[in-house]
Amino acid sequence: MEIIKTIKEMKAFSSKARQRGKTIAFVPTMGFFHEGHLSLMREGRKRCDLLIVSLFVNPTQFGPSEDFQKYPRDFERDRKMAEDVGVDLLFAPEAKEMYPSDHQTVVRVEKVTRGLCGRSRPTHFQGVATVVTMLFNIVMPHVAVFGEKDFQQLVTIRQMVKDLYMDVEILGMPTVREADGLAMSSRNLYLRPEEKQAALSLYRSLKRAEELLQKGERKVEKILKEVTGIFLSEPLVKIDYVQVCNPTTLEDLSEIERDVVIALAAYVGQTRLIDNLIYRSC
Amino acid sequence: MEIIKTIKEMKAFSSKARQRGKTIAFVPTMGFFHEGHLSLMREGRKRCDLLIVSLFVNPTQFGPSEDFQKYPRDFERDRKMAEDVGVDLLFAPEAKEMYPSDHQTVVRVEKVTRGLCGRSRPTHFQGVATVVTMLFNIVMPHVAVFGEKDFQQLVTIRQMVKDLYMDVEILGMPTVREADGLAMSSRNLYLRPEEKQAALSLYRSLKRAEELLQKGERKVEKILKEVTGIFLSEPLVKIDYVQVCNPTTLEDLSEIERDVVIALAAYVGQTRLIDNLIYRSC
Repeated sequence: MEIIKTIKEMKAFSSKARQRGKTIAFVPTMGFFHEGHLSLMREGRKRCDLLIVSLFVNPTQFGPSEDFQKYPRDFERDRKMAEDVGVDLLFAPEAKEMYPSDHQTVVRVEKVTRGLCGRSRPTHFQGVATVVTMLFNIVMPHVAVFGEKDFQQLVTIRQMVKDLYMDVEILGMPTVREADGLAMSSRNLYLRPEEKQAALSLYRSLKRAEELLQKGERKVEKILKEVTGIFLSEPLVKIDYVQVCNPTTLEDLSEIERDVVIALAAYVGQTRLIDNLIYRSC
Repeated sequence: MEIIKTIKEMKAFSSKARQRGKTIAFVPTMGFFHEGHLSLMREGRKRCDLLIVSLFVNPTQFGPSEDFQKYPRDFERDRKMAEDVGVDLLFAPEAKEMYPSDHQTVVRVEKVTRGLCGRSRPTHFQGVATVVTMLFNIVMPHVAVFGEKDFQQLVTIRQMVKDLYMDVEILGMPTVREADGLAMSSRNLYLRPEEKQAALSLYRSLKRAEELLQKGERKVEKILKEVTGIFLSEPLVKIDYVQVCNPTTLEDLSEIERDVVIALAAYVGQTRLIDNLIYRSC
């Protein structure tokens, strides 16, 4: 597995690969890999001739009071895991390589980033859209793989690619969960044992909503009432939002007609976790 | 000369051309061609195998009280002029083709768009940066040619391409002027004869500034005093700004050390005109 740290070398590698007719799959990550990341890499591995993974803890997607400094990092561990899963190239630039001091261009996707996590993280998705645009231009992939766990991020990237006519196919992959149902996240590392136990209520509430949908419930109000009820019995969990949305526009629904996504965010102790469930009506 | 109106056909044409190893020069325009546009096309013609010109009056770069509706349009005239100058393909999409109703992504270049025209046209450069990003992704050029007449636009595009690591070479071409010195612009069409006469003071003031620089004047204050003096004797001209700036960052200068751009905007009657002069110290 090759490791590249400069943009110049990365662009040269991808240009050359494309000239030789190779297809490139790309998985952008912030590192500290878990099975969720590995599932994206395995999908990328199947899809294209070359698999490139970026490892970059992007400062511009963290708010001023968020966990940029303490976000977990372990390059050696990540390097080995990427190699074992068949990654061809790990792109791991420094922040000052990506953002020189005169950097001043941002990409913003407007409607789909306003609600859900966008309300409490007003600059987060602008940071994501900008860095993903930069990475797409540097890595020049044919296919890019993202997790459905960060559902609003996936919708934002899809909308951006469509609006700006970028030539990249976006693949969304199902959330990978622990045996007990907890969605895998690098931030689960922050949870103490009793918090981890409390965090299971997130998935439990989503499963309850799914059960109601399967039984034919179509009133969003009723579903949300049951779901929020589950959190009331968990003193360690403070809900930020639970919403039932159109999975393309992320607009709030009051009545369910077709596919929906039930998305939620909650603080478990000091740690902010997100999860979601996609329900397809057919 | 081929004419294409849909994004899908345009992308297919450029993909195929690139696969066959052809290089593409691109001149984005809002049409109503004059010698300024043609000089950009001639340069593009020399640089690459294929020359593509886009003709699109981009609604998002006009403010609510600006001249989008009355902006001059003459497709037949433009088509003929493009053909005569050796354009291979004219890309002329409709606004609803470029901006479907759910379009919501914008590209913003921050520092260099704040001053100069950015103060009175706060959303203009966001509209420009967004449409140029879209056009670059659709047309996939190797080289794109812009006029130095729209100097802040040129700086904005250069900064955007650098920040987002786009794979396009940006060429800036000198302003083309009428015999009397007036910078060519599609908006000159709006000028009545007495206004056209008054508009000559714009270039006259820039030439006076150049003269002072050539004589060794290095105090910006003194240069601006003389330049603004010239406009005071023109009752039809209302100056918006005259500034002496660093030509890369567009920051205001008080003392001249290296290259500078003297940029100005003024209303002549109801018509807003811009002009500039680049002074290279060596």
